[in-house]
Amino acid sequence: MTTQERIEESLTAEVVASFAGTADPRLKELLEALTRHLHAFIREVRLTEDEWTRAIEFLTAVGHITDERRQEFILLSDVLGASMQTIAVNNEAYGNATEATVFGPFFVEESPLAGDGGDIAAGAAGTPCWVEGTVRDTDGNPVPGARIEVWEADEDGFYDVQYTDDRVAGRGHLFSEADGSFRFWCVTPTPYPIPHDGPVGALLKAAGRSPMRAAHLHFMVSANDFRTLVTHIFVEGDPQLEIGDSVFGVKESLVKKFEEQPAGTPAPDGRALGDKPWARARFDVVLAPADLR
Amino acid sequence: MTTQERIEESLTAEVVASFAGTADPRLKELLEALTRHLHAFIREVRLTEDEWTRAIEFLTAVGHITDERRQEFILLSDVLGASMQTIAVNNEAYGNATEATVFGPFFVEESPLAGDGGDIAAGAAGTPCWVEGTVRDTDGNPVPGARIEVWEADEDGFYDVQYTDDRVAGRGHLFSEADGSFRFWCVTPTPYPIPHDGPVGALLKAAGRSPMRAAHLHFMVSANDFRTLVTHIFVEGDPQLEIGDSVFGVKESLVKKFEEQPAGTPAPDGRALGDKPWARARFDVVLAPADLR
Ligand SMILES: [Fe+2]
Ligand SMILES: [Fe+2]
Repeated sequence: MTTQERIEESLTAEVVASFAGTADPRLKELLEALTRHLHAFIREVRLTEDEWTRAIEFLTAVGHITDERRQEFILLSDVLGASMQTIAVNNEAYGNATEATVFGPFFVEESPLAGDGGDIAAGAAGTPCWVEGTVRDTDGNPVPGARIEVWEADEDGFYDVQYTDDRVAGRGHLFSEADGSFRFWCVTPTPYPIPHDGPVGALLKAAGRSPMRAAHLHFMVSANDFRTLVTHIFVEGDPQLEIGDSVFGVKESLVKKFEEQPAGTPAPDGRALGDKPWARARFDVVLAPADLR
Repeated sequence: MTTQERIEESLTAEVVASFAGTADPRLKELLEALTRHLHAFIREVRLTEDEWTRAIEFLTAVGHITDERRQEFILLSDVLGASMQTIAVNNEAYGNATEATVFGPFFVEESPLAGDGGDIAAGAAGTPCWVEGTVRDTDGNPVPGARIEVWEADEDGFYDVQYTDDRVAGRGHLFSEADGSFRFWCVTPTPYPIPHDGPVGALLKAAGRSPMRAAHLHFMVSANDFRTLVTHIFVEGDPQLEIGDSVFGVKESLVKKFEEQPAGTPAPDGRALGDKPWARARFDVVLAPADLR
């Protein structure tokens, strides 16, 4: 080991040791590991003082654009895949249980009750889309009474909460039936960009990366004794799936057929759609047990 | 490899690959390495979603307390030893060249010219302290005309810029003489806390760590054809050296004797100090060549 290597390693050891008195053992573990990985990064890339200064300036800009309505640190975590990696770590693969993906910033508590076969679009612009499926356990038994939260952007790429008029649209909840089945109307999801007029957008631009998210419909499915599932379904054939989802939320198993139905095709529930085309998709949810670990 | 390991590794690989189109090759290298180390941290500690949320909240608080006068991200980098590790990486050990340490947030451009034997305290409260030494190269040759910037807190632990009255005190510059020697008056440094009323202070508290910096006198020494040296000298016997410097700036080689001189002891330059005790210290600086790499 060179003198220089010894200096660098002993500095890391000194910082790790400084956390020895942390009262909470988990916080101690996190701070020690953070120190080791942060120092390993600096040492590996031989971070220059100018680069360090620019990193401080970048984080400062991320902090300053963040407010009640804009969370640039979450965006940063998202575009670095840190959010998705955290999801992966906390939703370990279990049998054929449906895979989880990112939660995103647009969920709202206490969404309207849509009811079985109801329309969660509630006026959100877009192509009407019928979604049906089942909620089952990993043995194939139906899970009745599962709470199914659904939320999505409209065809202009905006969630209701991004408008300033207090509208509630493109979100709702329903419960699975006795046989585990569910069905609802929404609008066919379309790609939309994450906010990219701030420092994270500048980072994506410098990296030649698209700020677009692949088109998706958000789900959160919860039931007693089951692990809560936060996920999306994606739209087969969406070109953004090839370009890449800006937050790395796509899993092959979550890409679903959204079958286009020509205008005039009768709707499954007899809904009168006039001269509008519509679409239909199927999503069969499999929940892992709550106590799998 | 388990399915779960494969999922986590392939996610990291996917994020690394997303930076393939980064135009600046160095930025590409930095983003790829940052991704690898950040994901390794999340995977190693099995970061929970609740911990992720608390980390986002912590960074948000760091961002919101940061303004023109307060730089909490630098403090965070400092207390994690990231600043000092960056200094270490950029000031590689070279022969007997004086070791570098953290720059800190209190340097000001265009400090007053103190001149050889001048007083940089300029009214800053504290025990008068005479500092003398030489600037030499690693072969022992004197370096004349080196610019020596010195800055320090007063005995209340505050730098001039932390007062709101626009005072300039406790900072100045001089140049080494033809034989490489220099001398000046200042005040004996005393320990002071880094700002600890914000999120970084809360972190230190949770970790049972002291926010105090070991007493120190800042130097920046620059001369043509030499690597600019940013360093401190520390005070032998300062109890904070045992407790630990909050930003990990201490190097054994930088700890110097500050010899207390009883009131009435004649000053080296004949300065009339009345009935005040004073102190003296010696700092022989060795500069590395500018082109050592
Ligand atoms: Fe979304
Ligand atoms: Fe200082």
